[in-house]
Order: sequence, then C-alpha cells, then structure tokens
Amino acid sequence: MAEPAERSLIFPRAEYQRRTHALQAKMAVAGQDLLLLTTPADVFYTTGFLTRFWESPARPWYNLIPAKGDPIAVIPAIGADLMGRTWIDQIHTWPAPDPHDDGVGLLASVIADQVPEGGRIAVPMGLETQLRAPLADFETLKSHLSGRRFVDGTDTLHRVREVKSEAEVAAVRESCAIAGRAFDRVATFAHTGVSVAEVFRSFQMALLQEGADWVSYVAGGAGQGGYGDVISPAAEKPLERGDVLMLDTGAVRNGYFCDFDRNYSIGPVAADTARVQEALWLATERALQDMRPGMRACDVHHMLTETLQSHVATPLGGRLGHGLGVTLTEWPSFTALDQTVLVEGMVLTLEPGVEIAPGRTLVHEENIVLRADGPELLTPRAPQDLPELM
Amino acid sequence: MAEPAERSLIFPRAEYQRRTHALQAKMAVAGQDLLLLTTPADVFYTTGFLTRFWESPARPWYNLIPAKGDPIAVIPAIGADLMGRTWIDQIHTWPAPDPHDDGVGLLASVIADQVPEGGRIAVPMGLETQLRAPLADFETLKSHLSGRRFVDGTDTLHRVREVKSEAEVAAVRESCAIAGRAFDRVATFAHTGVSVAEVFRSFQMALLQEGADWVSYVAGGAGQGGYGDVISPAAEKPLERGDVLMLDTGAVRNGYFCDFDRNYSIGPVAADTARVQEALWLATERALQDMRPGMRACDVHHMLTETLQSHVATPLGGRLGHGLGVTLTEWPSFTALDQTVLVEGMVLTLEPGVEIAPGRTLVHEENIVLRADGPELLTPRAPQDLPELM
Repeated sequence: MAEPAERSLIFPRAEYQRRTHALQAKMAVAGQDLLLLTTPADVFYTTGFLTRFWESPARPWYNLIPAKGDPIAVIPAIGADLMGRTWIDQIHTWPAPDPHDDGVGLLASVIADQVPEGGRIAVPMGLETQLRAPLADFETLKSHLSGRRFVDGTDTLHRVREVKSEAEVAAVRESCAIAGRAFDRVATFAHTGVSVAEVFRSFQMALLQEGADWVSYVAGGAGQGGYGDVISPAAEKPLERGDVLMLDTGAVRNGYFCDFDRNYSIGPVAADTARVQEALWLATERALQDMRPGMRACDVHHMLTETLQSHVATPLGGRLGHGLGVTLTEWPSFTALDQTVLVEGMVLTLEPGVEIAPGRTLVHEENIVLRADGPELLTPRAPQDLPELM
Repeated sequence: MAEPAERSLIFPRAEYQRRTHALQAKMAVAGQDLLLLTTPADVFYTTGFLTRFWESPARPWYNLIPAKGDPIAVIPAIGADLMGRTWIDQIHTWPAPDPHDDGVGLLASVIADQVPEGGRIAVPMGLETQLRAPLADFETLKSHLSGRRFVDGTDTLHRVREVKSEAEVAAVRESCAIAGRAFDRVATFAHTGVSVAEVFRSFQMALLQEGADWVSYVAGGAGQGGYGDVISPAAEKPLERGDVLMLDTGAVRNGYFCDFDRNYSIGPVAADTARVQEALWLATERALQDMRPGMRACDVHHMLTETLQSHVATPLGGRLGHGLGVTLTEWPSFTALDQTVLVEGMVLTLEPGVEIAPGRTLVHEENIVLRADGPELLTPRAPQDLPELM
C-alpha cells in the first residue's frame, strides 16, 4: 500500500525502542554487529507484528536488529501492510514463496549493508531456539556473506526477553485472569458422563467468552485418582466418579500467554490423591514464600522436590516450572541442571508434579512475576482442597 | 510407563505403514539411508503422534525413517507415554530440556546404528521446510556423524506427503464440513455495530460447537467495499453498512486442517464489489472444471489470472492457492514460478484474489481433492452472490 498506514501496536513505541536498545547493549558487549531473528515470538517481540499467519509454514520471515538504529524487516510481500502498521519503518519485501530465491538474496544484501566484511552476525542457535527458515537458505545466506562470521545469539536474546516490562507483566496478568474466569465455570460443563473431548471444547469456548483472542493450547487428562500424562489430546471417554480431571491452558490475549492448570475431582476425592494434593499445594506455597532474585533455576527445583519429599510425595522427573510470555513456555527450566540465575521481572510458572502410582499423576501450576521481595502471583491461587464436581 | 499402553491412533496402522513404505521407496531411489524429521506435521504424519504440546518451543523431537523397518522416535521423556500409544514401538527418550546435551548424543548413537559410515542422512532443507531443533544441535549432530553425509530430503518428503490417501481426504472433508456449518451461522452473530474482534470470537466458538477439536487459524478483515489485508488479527472497529467482512479459517479435526474463507456484505453490495465477486466466483468455477493431473501449479495460476483478467479484474500478486493437509498450507503454490506437477490425490486450495482499488481486496477460497477427471470439492461451494448481513 502506498498511503501511510495507521499504526496498530499493543504497546507504545517506547516499549519496542527499549527492547531494541537492550538487545543492542548486549550485542555491543558480545561484539555482535547484527542479530537475525526468524521465529514468530522473536519477530513479535521486536516489531509488534501480531498475526496467526505463522500457522502457514510456507514462508520465512526475517527481522534484523542492527548495531544501531531501528530494526529492519525483510519479509514476504503479503505481510507488508500489517508490518507497515507496527513501529517498523524499514521494510523490505519479496514475492514469497519463490522457488528460485525465497528472499535469501534480498536478505543477504540488506545484511551486507549493515555488517562490514569481518563483522559478526548473531543468530540464536542454542537451547530453546529454532531457525524458522529452510536450512538450505541459511547455508546460501552464509555463502553470500562469507566474509562475515555467524555466531550464537542465544544469550543476547534470552537475557533480554526473559526480563519482562510492567506492560508485559500486565499482559500476562490479563491472560491469567481470563483463564481464571474460565476455570471458575468448569463446574457448569464438566460432570459425570460428559466426555473429556466435550469438556475441552466447552473450556475453549469459555476462554473465548471470557476474552481470549485465541486458544493456542489446551491439554489435560482424566483418570481414576490421577491422570496418565499431561500432553495428550482429549479422549472421548466419559468422566466417571473417582476421576481426577485436569485442564491446562495457554490462552492468548494481545499476543501474551498464560500457562496454568486446575484439577477437579469427579465425586469424592480418594485419600491418597487428597494427600498428594496437599503436598503439591504446600510445595507451591513454599516457593511463593521463599523464591528470590539471585537464586538459580535449579535452586527452585530443589526447593519444590524437597518440599514434596518431606510430605512423602514422589516428584515427577521433568521440569517443575519454566519461563512464560510471548510463547507458552520460555527458559529457564526448573530442573536439577539449569543454572540460570533468576532476576527481578522474570515471569515464571511453578509446576510441581507428583507420581501417585504408575500412570497416576497430579500436577499443579501457577504463574508469577519475580519481584525483589519474592513472587507476585499472576494467577488466582488454586484452592488448597481439590474441588468436587458432580 | 512400564505396562503396555492402549493404542490411540486416528488411522489404522496400515495407513502409517503405507506412508513409511512410500518414503522408503523414495529414499531408495535417492540413495538415502535415513530420513530425519523434526516438525510437528512430519512427526504426526509418520507416527500419528497428535498433541498441542508443540506450542512449547522448549524441546526438540525427532523421528527417524530408516531404509527398512518401522520409524524410530527419539523424543523427550515427557512424550513417551503418548508416543507409546501410537504405532511406534522403538522409542528412545531423554530428560529434556537438558542444557548440556538435549538429546543430540542419543540421537547420534541411534542414527549411527542405522546408517553405516559413508551413508547418507536426508533432512528436509528446501522450500517450505524447517528444522525444528536448535541450529547448534544440528552442527553437533553433524560432527558426531562426520563419516556420514547430510543431504536434502525435501523431495523425498514432499512427493509422498502431497498425495493424500482416501482416509486423509475424508479427514480434510470433515474439517471443511465443520467450518461450512460455522460459516452458515455467521449471520447470527455478525451485523452492523458488532466489532470484528467479537465476530472472530463468536466464529471460533461456532467452529468448536460444530466439532472442531481446536481452531489453529482465524484471520480476516472488514472494510468499505473490500478489506485491506488477509492476515491481520481482528480490529475492535464495529462493522458498518457497506463493509465487506471476510472470515478465513484453519479449523482442525483429528489433526487435519481445512483452509477456506467466506465473504459477507454488511448491507447492500457496492457495484464494483459485486462485479469482482462475480469474476472471482467464475475464476474458481473455471478451475473446478478444467484442472487436471499433469498440469503444473503455474498452469493453474495462469488459468485463474486469465479468467480474472477476462472479467477486467486485477489479480492479487501472491499465490492463488496451495496444498493443504496436516498443516494450514502445504506446497505446491499456485504462482507463475511453481513448476510442481499436479497429481491425483493432491488436496489443494483455490484462492483467487482481486485488488478492487488500493487497500480494497476480495479473496475467495475453496478446498478440493484432485481426481483423475478433475477437482472434487471438499468445501460447500460458496454462493455466487455475496450474502448480505444486516
């Protein structure tokens, strides 16, 4: 479009400028002349470009953070109008998908203008990163820019993205509130005889009615006294007395996720389930009291597992919480191995899980922002006792 | 879990065996000893592993197609239970995310057992592919397997995935029927004064009520006599008389997508919009009559643009249709450049678009399966005249 487009941004321009400057400060320290971003989350984070069109894997999209100045988008022509309504002014496009050259020549020439021979181009390459572009295109790009070095930009990106501004915290809080209201309505549609698949559908509708723009993630399960796993799609099996139902959601509002679950007992709660429910609630409570900036991710893992074990509960093997924001999950991970230092402004999930018996688990989850004096809850706190449904 | 798990597959085991054998036949011709797959679509296609957990970018997942025998999954431990309920028996797991080695050592050793020194490992690297794993991990994998060659597996994968079985056609048809019923209800919630954002929410609820498992994609727009672009999220602006409203959806049932849109006029239709509506409807009609296996993707592009131009309408610059199946969009692309030969069994969208004036477009979309004697519609055919809403 030729005419100047109306801006359409979730946050003020200053928020995106702050992010760009923070990335550029890290780049300067690391000696990086340009940061090349390709994923939906990274492009949204740096430009404000919000679309569900990423669902189509057909086309790569690139956003460049130069050493100085505003980001430069190199994107398929179909996105020019929408990108023109963000804060980005430098937008280069090509008619994608092009089987001969799907934007690589254009991208190389834009980068060459920004990075001198001998310069360093940072691309996120480490844990929890992906290059959302064809591998062969990346090899071609490297050969076009053979005088420059490609280096790992993971640390540059992660140390900035993991610290949320107050505007971002408010956005996650809003998504959490939406899901909280939807969880409050579960008793109206989940009861004995209704299939878990129907419960999933009704829950997604409740999330939309409560204000979610879209529902990127719903998982859960139901089983006698506990469920088998937490990533399965819904079963057609009807709920029965004695089942524990778990619903977990990543609902999205303004591009920001919540990620938490709630558990419900269909009829009275079994004694061993109630005991584990108590242990999980207390483990979360301990973290809500004792987590502080300066601790490492592995320290929180230790705190959660220790509390569970002190209540004679067997912690699940996977991570017991993680970062959260413009994707359903972000680094760090509350595992025994993750040494990431927690800092003020991180938005995190606390997700302790327990194996009651083989194939029977129970998982709790809350979302928090870490403040100087400890966690501030973003989710309405789960009840201490498992709510009973009919 | 130690006990044998109940199988939970959308299609019979024979469907997955057929896919594996088809890939292995292509691999044999290309001299490839193993095909390494990483994306949600490719893993789902070859294993039946269906989960929304891909929404978390934290962990890579690998599925290996060996030269002979069944696929081998190398996946995070959190997926062991669900993968155990597919048809896959060989499942290797690691406790992801692991900051020291996130499954690369394990993956290298499993591949080394399958591919002799000097052998060739195919990875999709071309147009419309991505490696859903950290770049640094791929480099480490290559160094672990330095005696083997990594080659492009795009053609192997695409020539198999693009030809749908009758079971797959039925799955897309079901998603199309669900969306068709939801489109029929648009008049009940979209009218003057309602914001496009509210229409998007109501439409997503209608899709769920009509049987969608989840709604991976909704886009659209509204504007006087046509809309500005087709990938934007919903605006808060209320619908007004004279607007054309477009809704486009990729609703998912059993892991298979539909991808089509419908247009509605708020109040009476402007004369130039009605004329373009007619041209678009006739362009689709021509393709529905004349498309045949053996044509190239660019021939369909030519057919659509020629018909539009003969009705004095200006075709949009992007692609005018594409493949469809386990992702919202698949190859080929109806562009002037795509030489892909169309074959029987391809599921495709016909998506002609017209620019009425700068910033005012109209786009139609239908989904078809290509038969020996031409297209079979999978969508309920759009009405020839633009329906009017109050």
